[in-house]
Amino acid sequence: MKVLNHLVNNKKFQNFIIAVIIFNAFILGLDTYNLDPKIHNVIEILDEICLVIYTIELIFKIIAFGRHFIRSGWNIFDFFVVAVCFMPAGSDFAVLRLLRIFRILRLLSAFPSMRLIVSALLNSLSAMVSICCLLMIFFYIYAVLCVGLFGEAFPQFFGTLGESLYSLFQIMTLESWSMGIARPVIAVFPYAWIIFISFILIMSFIVLNLAIGVVVNSIGELSKQNNQEETVEITQLHKEVMELKQLIKNLSTNKFGEN
Amino acid sequence: MKVLNHLVNNKKFQNFIIAVIIFNAFILGLDTYNLDPKIHNVIEILDEICLVIYTIELIFKIIAFGRHFIRSGWNIFDFFVVAVCFMPAGSDFAVLRLLRIFRILRLLSAFPSMRLIVSALLNSLSAMVSICCLLMIFFYIYAVLCVGLFGEAFPQFFGTLGESLYSLFQIMTLESWSMGIARPVIAVFPYAWIIFISFILIMSFIVLNLAIGVVVNSIGELSKQNNQEETVEITQLHKEVMELKQLIKNLSTNKFGEN
Amino acid sequence: MKVLNHLVNNKKFQNFIIAVIIFNAFILGLDTYNLDPKIHNVIEILDEICLVIYTIELIFKIIAFGRHFIRSGWNIFDFFVVAVCFMPAGSDFAVLRLLRIFRILRLLSAFPSMRLIVSALLNSLSAMVSICCLLMIFFYIYAVLCVGLFGEAFPQFFGTLGESLYSLFQIMTLESWSMGIARPVIAVFPYAWIIFISFILIMSFIVLNLAIGVVVNSIGELSKQNNQEETVEITQLHKEVMELKQLIKNLSTNKFGEN
Amino acid sequence: MKVLNHLVNNKKFQNFIIAVIIFNAFILGLDTYNLDPKIHNVIEILDEICLVIYTIELIFKIIAFGRHFIRSGWNIFDFFVVAVCFMPAGSDFAVLRLLRIFRILRLLSAFPSMRLIVSALLNSLSAMVSICCLLMIFFYIYAVLCVGLFGEAFPQFFGTLGESLYSLFQIMTLESWSMGIARPVIAVFPYAWIIFISFILIMSFIVLNLAIGVVVNSIGELSKQNNQEETVEITQLHKEVMELKQLIKNLSTNKFGEN
Repeated sequence: MKVLNHLVNNKKFQNFIIAVIIFNAFILGLDTYNLDPKIHNVIEILDEICLVIYTIELIFKIIAFGRHFIRSGWNIFDFFVVAVCFMPAGSDFAVLRLLRIFRILRLLSAFPSMRLIVSALLNSLSAMVSICCLLMIFFYIYAVLCVGLFGEAFPQFFGTLGESLYSLFQIMTLESWSMGIARPVIAVFPYAWIIFISFILIMSFIVLNLAIGVVVNSIGELSKQNNQEETVEITQLHKEVMELKQLIKNLSTNKFGEN
Repeated sequence: MKVLNHLVNNKKFQNFIIAVIIFNAFILGLDTYNLDPKIHNVIEILDEICLVIYTIELIFKIIAFGRHFIRSGWNIFDFFVVAVCFMPAGSDFAVLRLLRIFRILRLLSAFPSMRLIVSALLNSLSAMVSICCLLMIFFYIYAVLCVGLFGEAFPQFFGTLGESLYSLFQIMTLESWSMGIARPVIAVFPYAWIIFISFILIMSFIVLNLAIGVVVNSIGELSKQNNQEETVEITQLHKEVMELKQLIKNLSTNKFGEN
Repeated sequence: MKVLNHLVNNKKFQNFIIAVIIFNAFILGLDTYNLDPKIHNVIEILDEICLVIYTIELIFKIIAFGRHFIRSGWNIFDFFVVAVCFMPAGSDFAVLRLLRIFRILRLLSAFPSMRLIVSALLNSLSAMVSICCLLMIFFYIYAVLCVGLFGEAFPQFFGTLGESLYSLFQIMTLESWSMGIARPVIAVFPYAWIIFISFILIMSFIVLNLAIGVVVNSIGELSKQNNQEETVEITQLHKEVMELKQLIKNLSTNKFGEN
Repeated sequence: MKVLNHLVNNKKFQNFIIAVIIFNAFILGLDTYNLDPKIHNVIEILDEICLVIYTIELIFKIIAFGRHFIRSGWNIFDFFVVAVCFMPAGSDFAVLRLLRIFRILRLLSAFPSMRLIVSALLNSLSAMVSICCLLMIFFYIYAVLCVGLFGEAFPQFFGTLGESLYSLFQIMTLESWSMGIARPVIAVFPYAWIIFISFILIMSFIVLNLAIGVVVNSIGELSKQNNQEETVEITQLHKEVMELKQLIKNLSTNKFGEN
C-alpha cells in the first residue's frame, strides 16, 4: 500500500497518465475520419489499452487511499468517467460508444492547474445559484404565457412548454429573435412586441447582474485578502502603542514610587 | 389578531404558501398540454383552491399587520398579483385567464433570499435611470430620423414611429441588423450606413457605460464598507496615541511639579 | 446685462426651455404620422415658434455671458444645434429639414444631470482612444487583405475598401458572419476560415480589453479617492506620533538638564 | 556606429518612419481600387521605395544595437515583417503580395503608446492561458461528439472534425445557432437540444469567467500598487513608534541609572 501511495503521488506517474489521456483524445479524434478498417481496428485496440490503464490507475488509487478515496470529489469524478465505459451496451450501443470521448474530461482532474480553475469556476457558480432561480422563474412564466397566447398559431415555436422554453432560450441569446420569431408573431398578434421586448429587457438585466455578481464577488475576496494584511499591520502597530503606554505608566509609577 | 400575527410569521405557514405557489406553477404548466377535459377540470378546481388559499393568506396578513400592511412594497405586490385574478372578465376573458401565471411571481416575495436579490436588482436599476434617459433620447432622435428618411421606401421597418423604434431596438440587439435591415436600405440609400453604424456605436458605448456604472457602483459600496472598518481601526489607534500623549504630558507636569 | 444674466441662470427659465424642447420633440414625433395637412401646418408653425425661443435664449446667453460664452463646450454645442436650422436649404431641403430632430439633443445640455453623464462618457472615451487606434489598424489591414483575396469573387461583400470595412464591421458585431458571409466564402476559398476566425478572435479580445480598460479606469479613480482619505488619516497619525517623540525628547532633556 | 545609434534613437527619424508606414498603408489601400495601370505602376514603385526605407532602417538598427538587437521582441517583430517581403515568390505570388499589408503592423512597434497597449494586451493574454485550455478541451469533446452523432445526417455542419470545430465556434458566437443549425438538427434528432444548450451554457460560463479573470487581474494589480504605498506609510509609522519605545526605555534606564 505504501508503494502504491508513493507511485500514485509520483510526478512521473501522473505525467504518464496525462500523456495517455492526450494520446487517447488524439486517437478518438482520428477515429472520426473515414479510415481504412485496419487502422480503425488498431485505434479500437489502442483505446481499449487506454481504458485498461485508467482502470489500473483507479484501482491503485482506491487501494492507496482506502477510505480517503471518496473524500475527494475529483476521485469520484474519475471513477464515474471510467465506470461509464463498462456499462452494458444494449440497443443504444453506438451512442454509448460516443460517450467514450468524455474520458478526455479526466484532463481536468489530471492537471493541478486545471483543478484550481475548475474549483474557481464552481465557486463562482455558487454565487450564481439564487439569481439563476430568478431567471428560471421568469423563463417559466413567459413559457407558459407564450404557449397560451401563440401556441395554436405558431406550433413550431410555442407548441408545447418544452418548445416554448427552447424558443425563449433562443430569444435570450438574441439569435434571430426578431426576424425569425418576433416579426412573424407580431404580424398575427400586434401586441406581441410587449412580450418579446419585456422578456429581452428583463433577461438582459438579470444576466448583466449575474455577471456583475461574479465580478464583485471575485473583487470582494481579493480586497478582503488585502485588507486582512493591512489589518494585521495596523493591529501590530496597535499592540506596539499599547506596550509603549505600559512602559510610560511603569515609568510614571516608578518615578512616584521612588520618591 | 395576535394569533394571526403569529401564524403569518410562522416558518411552517410560509413554507406551506411556497409549496402552494410551486404546486400552482406546476399545474398551470401541465395545463398547457392538450389534456383530457376531465383532468383539465381537475386542474381548474385545484387552481381555484390555490387562489382561495392566497386570498385567505392575504386577508390574514391585512388583519395581522393592520395599517403596517401597506408599508411593505412586497405586501402591495402580493395584493395586486392576487387582485388581478378577481378582475371582471369581459371579452378578453381568455387573455385575462393567461395572466394567472403571473401569480407565480409571488415566489419572489415568498422566499427571503429572492427578496434580497430583487431589492439588489432594483437598487442597481436606480443607478441606471439617468443613463437610460440618455439612451431613450438617442432612440427617439434616430427613430424620427429613420421614419423621415426611410419610411416611404421601407414601411415594414420604418413605416411609423412605433415600427421604427422596434426596428432600432432590433438593431441595438445586433439581430440581423446588417443582412436583414441595413444592406437592403443601403442598396436604396447609399449613405444610410452612416445612420446604422453611428447608431450601433453610440448605443454599444452607452450600454457598455451603463453596465460599467453598475459594476463600479457595486464595487464602490463594497470598498466603502471595507474602508469604514479600516477607518475605525485607525481612529482607535489615533485615540490610543492621544492618550499616550496625555500620559507623557502628565508625567512631564508631575515631574516639574514635584521639583 | 445683469438682468439677462439673472434670467439665464434662473431655474424657472431653464425649466421653461426644457419644457419647450420636450414639446418640440413631441410635435416632431407627431409629424412622422400622415396627418391632416391643417394639423401638419399647425405643427410647422409651432416648430418655428420653438426655434424662435431657442434663438432668443441663445442671444440672451451670448449677451449675458459675453466673452465667457465660448468657454463652455455646452454653449458652443447649443449654438451649432440651433445654427444648423438656419442653414440655406438648397436641393437637399428635405434631408436638411430632418436634421431638425437633432435639436432634441439640447436636452443633454439643458438637464444638469445629463451634462454630468455626458461628461463622464466623454471622459471614459478618452481612455479608449489609443486602443481604438489599435482596433482601426487591424480593421484596415483585414479590409485591404479581404479586398485582395475575395474582392473579385464576392463583390457584394468585399468589392471595394469601403464595402470591405462595412462587412468586417458586420462580422465584428457577429451578425450573420458565418451563414451570411464566411460559409459562402469558405465554399470558394477553403482556407478563408483563417481570416474570419482570426479576425473575430483578435477583435473580441481587443473589444474585451477596451471594456475592461474603462472598468479598471473607473475603479482606479474610485480607489484613489478612498486611498487619499486613508492617507490623510495615516499622515495625521504620523504627525501625532512625531509630536509625542518631541515631548519625550523634551522630557528626557529636561530631566538631564535638571540634574 | 555611435552616429547610427544616435540616428536610430532620434525622435525625428522615428517620426519619419511612422510617416512612411502611414503613407505605405494609404497607397496599399488606394491600390485596392481598379486604377489606371499608370497610377498602379507608380504605387508599385512607391511601395518598393517604402520597403527599401524599412530595410535600411533595419540594417541601421542591427549595426547600431549589435548583439542587443535580438533582445527586444519588437526588433524581431520588425525583422520578420520586413523579411516576409523578400521571400521568393513562387506559384502563390499573388497571395504573397497581399501579405505586404501586414507591414502596416509596424505601426504597433513604431508608436511608443502602441507598444505599451500591446504589452498590456499580451500580459492580459497570459492570464487567460489556462482557462483557454479548458475552453479547448470542451471544444474538442463536443466536436468529436457532434461528428459521431450528427456527422452522417449533416455533413455540411459536422462532416469532419474541422467542420465540426468551425460549426461549434459559430454556435459559440451565437450566430444563427438555432435557426441555422440547432433547429434542423433537432428536427432529425429530437434530443440534440441537450448538446447545443449545454454547449452554449458551458461556453458562455467559461467565456464570462475568462473576461472576469482579466478584470480581476487588472484590478488586483492596481490595488496591490495602492496597498504597497499604504504599507510603506504604515511601516514608516511603525519604525517611528519603535524609536519612541527606545527613547522611553532609554529614559527609564537613565532614570534608574542615575539613582
